Amino acid sequence: MRELRKQRGRPRKGGEDYDVVRERLVRAGVAALTEYGFVSTGLDQVVRAAGVPKGSFYTFFSSKEEFGLELIERYGVYFARRLDRFLLDETLSPLGRLRAFMQDSFANVTRFDYQRGCLVGNLGQEMSALPESFRQRLIDVFTDWQGRVEACLLSAQEAGEIASEIDCARKAELFWIGWEGAILRAKLERRVHPLEAYSEDFFKSLKLRHG
Amino acid sequence: MRELRKQRGRPRKGGEDYDVVRERLVRAGVAALTEYGFVSTGLDQVVRAAGVPKGSFYTFFSSKEEFGLELIERYGVYFARRLDRFLLDETLSPLGRLRAFMQDSFANVTRFDYQRGCLVGNLGQEMSALPESFRQRLIDVFTDWQGRVEACLLSAQEAGEIASEIDCARKAELFWIGWEGAILRAKLERRVHPLEAYSEDFFKSLKLRHG
Repeated sequence: MRELRKQRGRPRKGGEDYDVVRERLVRAGVAALTEYGFVSTGLDQVVRAAGVPKGSFYTFFSSKEEFGLELIERYGVYFARRLDRFLLDETLSPLGRLRAFMQDSFANVTRFDYQRGCLVGNLGQEMSALPESFRQRLIDVFTDWQGRVEACLLSAQEAGEIASEIDCARKAELFWIGWEGAILRAKLERRVHPLEAYSEDFFKSLKLRHG
Repeated sequence: MRELRKQRGRPRKGGEDYDVVRERLVRAGVAALTEYGFVSTGLDQVVRAAGVPKGSFYTFFSSKEEFGLELIERYGVYFARRLDRFLLDETLSPLGRLRAFMQDSFANVTRFDYQRGCLVGNLGQEMSALPESFRQRLIDVFTDWQGRVEACLLSAQEAGEIASEIDCARKAELFWIGWEGAILRAKLERRVHPLEAYSEDFFKSLKLRHG
């Protein structure tokens, strides 16, 4: 991420638009990182997309590193809420919830013309070039998402939808490993097929053996 | 990738060291892209690592895009050879060959201190920020690797090592989708565990159902 020089006239922190502008920066940042990752994204590009004067960035964030850390945090929370919308939907069976999440993701990836992937996956891939402080945050986000999928799989197991010998914690971990790989391939190939193939295989691997 | 300005005095193309120097540039480029991806890698960093005078880069490559395309090609070929070393090793059973490749990869990832991933995976992740010409090349490389794994799985099926109902082409595609995701996580977490967990699960999914 390219640096922006600090400017002198700092906008007042107590100003009524402070939170609104800060939020615009965060949203623009998340969108850019989801598409391009951290290294390719310039701060100037983010402030332009947010419609914020170039010089005021440092009123809101002390550094691009701090900004990046907040974007990871915010994306993690946003995505956890998105997951919950599906995984806690009691009108569906536990496996049906996971399936609904996946299908919504297929639609999303297509809607953004295969440009946007997963912010956490993008940054994970770039880790060698990122501030070391990002590492644990990215791992924490995966751990959080994993816990939500694990809970869903445990419910599925309780409901007799998946084999009882399945280690749900391990399966949830594997789910995210493969999912990130599938997002990568879908973006590369500009088609939803890798995600569909992966999902089908994942569900097959949960099947009752002698059911 | 940052640009280098062209310099005037071009080294002679017929010089005896021409191929040697060009090869050094390619090797330094592959190493950098395996670690950092395309966007974070500066050409100045590559020429420095190769011990080549800054100004002579454009004697060897007309642009950074052409350089990148050659690096993808070269990495694809290098890696295909590495795959063959295992997948065509007739002293092992077909599944044993795939297992040997994976175990060698665990060792490799550790040896490079979790810094180096897969050049093709890295570039796939960055695709939004890369020249469009890279896309088909990256897909072609995956297709090539996939064909090699498929052939190995077919041999395993013939040898009765894996279930006969398995679609080996599909499984080979899924192998690479998940493998790239596992490499990403191993680099992020700085441990081999995600690769081991993925491999174990992959082999389990090949098991004979009623065997």
